[in-house]
Amino acid sequence: MYGQSLVISEVRLTPVLVADPPLLNTQGVHQPYTPRLIIEVVTEGGVTGVGETYGDGKYLELARPFAAGLVGRAVSDLNGLFTLADDVAVNAARVDAAVDVGGLRGVQTADKLRLSVVSGFEVACLDALGKALGLPVHALLGGKVRDAVEYSAYLFYKRAEHPAGTVSEPDDGWGAALDPAGIVAQARLFTERHGFTSFKLKGGVFPPDEEIAAVRALAEAFPGAPLRLDPNGAWSVETSLKVAGEIGDVLEYLEDPALGTPAMAEVAAGASVPLATNMCVTTFEEIPEAFAGDAVQVVLSDHHYWGGLRRTRELAAVCRTFGVAVSMHSNTHLGISLAAMTHVAATVPDLRHACDSHYPWQSEDVLTERTRFVDGRVAVTDTPGLGVELDRDKLAALHARWLDDGFRALRERDDAAAMRVTDPRWVAPAAPRW
Amino acid sequence: MYGQSLVISEVRLTPVLVADPPLLNTQGVHQPYTPRLIIEVVTEGGVTGVGETYGDGKYLELARPFAAGLVGRAVSDLNGLFTLADDVAVNAARVDAAVDVGGLRGVQTADKLRLSVVSGFEVACLDALGKALGLPVHALLGGKVRDAVEYSAYLFYKRAEHPAGTVSEPDDGWGAALDPAGIVAQARLFTERHGFTSFKLKGGVFPPDEEIAAVRALAEAFPGAPLRLDPNGAWSVETSLKVAGEIGDVLEYLEDPALGTPAMAEVAAGASVPLATNMCVTTFEEIPEAFAGDAVQVVLSDHHYWGGLRRTRELAAVCRTFGVAVSMHSNTHLGISLAAMTHVAATVPDLRHACDSHYPWQSEDVLTERTRFVDGRVAVTDTPGLGVELDRDKLAALHARWLDDGFRALRERDDAAAMRVTDPRWVAPAAPRW
Repeated sequence: MYGQSLVISEVRLTPVLVADPPLLNTQGVHQPYTPRLIIEVVTEGGVTGVGETYGDGKYLELARPFAAGLVGRAVSDLNGLFTLADDVAVNAARVDAAVDVGGLRGVQTADKLRLSVVSGFEVACLDALGKALGLPVHALLGGKVRDAVEYSAYLFYKRAEHPAGTVSEPDDGWGAALDPAGIVAQARLFTERHGFTSFKLKGGVFPPDEEIAAVRALAEAFPGAPLRLDPNGAWSVETSLKVAGEIGDVLEYLEDPALGTPAMAEVAAGASVPLATNMCVTTFEEIPEAFAGDAVQVVLSDHHYWGGLRRTRELAAVCRTFGVAVSMHSNTHLGISLAAMTHVAATVPDLRHACDSHYPWQSEDVLTERTRFVDGRVAVTDTPGLGVELDRDKLAALHARWLDDGFRALRERDDAAAMRVTDPRWVAPAAPRW
Repeated sequence: MYGQSLVISEVRLTPVLVADPPLLNTQGVHQPYTPRLIIEVVTEGGVTGVGETYGDGKYLELARPFAAGLVGRAVSDLNGLFTLADDVAVNAARVDAAVDVGGLRGVQTADKLRLSVVSGFEVACLDALGKALGLPVHALLGGKVRDAVEYSAYLFYKRAEHPAGTVSEPDDGWGAALDPAGIVAQARLFTERHGFTSFKLKGGVFPPDEEIAAVRALAEAFPGAPLRLDPNGAWSVETSLKVAGEIGDVLEYLEDPALGTPAMAEVAAGASVPLATNMCVTTFEEIPEAFAGDAVQVVLSDHHYWGGLRRTRELAAVCRTFGVAVSMHSNTHLGISLAAMTHVAATVPDLRHACDSHYPWQSEDVLTERTRFVDGRVAVTDTPGLGVELDRDKLAALHARWLDDGFRALRERDDAAAMRVTDPRWVAPAAPRW
């Protein structure tokens, strides 16, 4: 056995609840707190690597036996993570029954759930391996091809605050954004605070005409800036084609206008604006049908559910082979994942679109230092591993919140349930909503 | 800058001529000596990594400026090798004019030539990186998923010896194999010497009925053993279908029966035996058409012309995504490449066919120890790097032969020219030959 010092002696799992602003999407509104899972792997050599993934119950349920199985393996045994996940899943069959068939990240399957768990451990192993070898994570992926990774401003329709009595944290300072003027003001704040020069609007919240007006307002306020609109599949093919016809000229791409590969292919055939997706192509299994039908022109990778940073690079290779572009999707995440996203993005040669990141919306983190965006970019660090440091006090505080019985209902992220706090009759609308 | 010790301070290129037996294929016969290029990269930290690739003039012409450009870069900067190759190629435009449009490895292009050069350097960098970090090359590729890699016996129609006066080396001991009995005898020698249990026959040499008889004889001599036949595209669609019909029942796969993706698709549509290729799918650019037309069911990877071990893994990922199997192609090569092939094959989870290797035909090598096949398998080493050691005396001797004016004509491998030594009117037959 080579590398005895690389063998994992301990794995720590710490579920946390992280403050999240009242951001709106087609299914509802973000809860005041969202669950995430922080993963630490400790090697015989005394190095600790960190990773991060979804923190809902079904992820924890798989992560626990996975963590137990990881002890005694080397952090360099990254191909073996998938075999271990298969073995663990066999013994956790009831998780299969618990997956749902919809959501903002496409159809959920047992396989995708498994990969979402693997990814957090893969990042932790890469962080530990890099620290042990004195190499940054990007070097473990073949080396960076750029020194900074560009991100887009992730604009949301947003309420001013969460319902009274649900949060103890101070106001996030962003205010409400419920119309074109509000979205433009939010975009200006993004540019002032972080220097972003491309903008994505999360749509599917208001009738299409209102969102068209918001995009037009952005185009006027930021002439020539790359713009994206993402209604999360809330539109019919007809509506999608209408929107594409009206604002396709100012869009860099239109993201998931309609639900499912056949509908996306129909839209793509009739629209001149490229279509992007993180809903109809979310697993390798979904690629052949989508590519054969030319349903999408940009795949939004996400290392969390594609199975880690190395699978993300494989996805990029598949896309490159078929002349499909890649960009990057984001869900609510902390600084560990931002570092992971930045490392892998730095190594993909043909990444020609700014990546998405929710990070500016997260006022809390588990790191000693917040990651900064400068001119909309995150610098690629050459510090060994991910180049981040866990703040144990912050981690403990966010974990204490997760343990607190008063927050128990928020351990499962449910945007529709959050909406029902103010609108008791709300149900996530069936697609197409418009 | 991290890893100053990983920076390349020197690159050495050593072209060699290696003894090769008189093996027959559809284009002619192997020369008595074949050119290969041995690459050494030396780091600031004093570690030397070795790689190997094709040694003909057009490869050397690109390898020299590439080597010069490599000095000062880190051996971990593997993604950067492709950019460097592009830069070097811009200044070596006349190489583009020199590529030919046919050959046993499919259409040759400037891009493929470039990747064939990159691959030798990539392997040398991985070897150096592994040695510097104390990790075997497979660990740099995510870790082995098996402890030994299976190879097939690579059977050839073969003359007893090269033409008189062309070689000074002793007889190779294999004798002639020019009919079914000769092929079976050769196969028996392979099993005795190396323990192989699957067999590939290089065809396209004799009329199809003779090769059908040889495969039938193998099937009788080795009941149930996986068999392959590879005529290198020498047959028409009609002939291919006839052969597939006659011996499809005993073939694991039929390799490149007809030339080009459209012809292969026609054969695939009418045959029940899977088709494999290392001729119509040899670059990522050729994949979409071939996969869309279901022209091939097995892609034979070859890290030399796919651009290295990491690209080979990407190819495997693309194939996995589209439900196409992978196996491994081989051309005349030495022990460095055998080690590289073994490391990468050890990391590909869904490699379910034995790999091809010419290595048993090579009586000469540049390593201190020959690699052994046990039960047809090569053990995956955990020694840092590739786990091989260059023998400088052997290297010097094979290089001296390359420098010798008497061998100058053999610096370019040309199987048709070698055939003309005994058959002055020989020209490589146009496809389809039968």
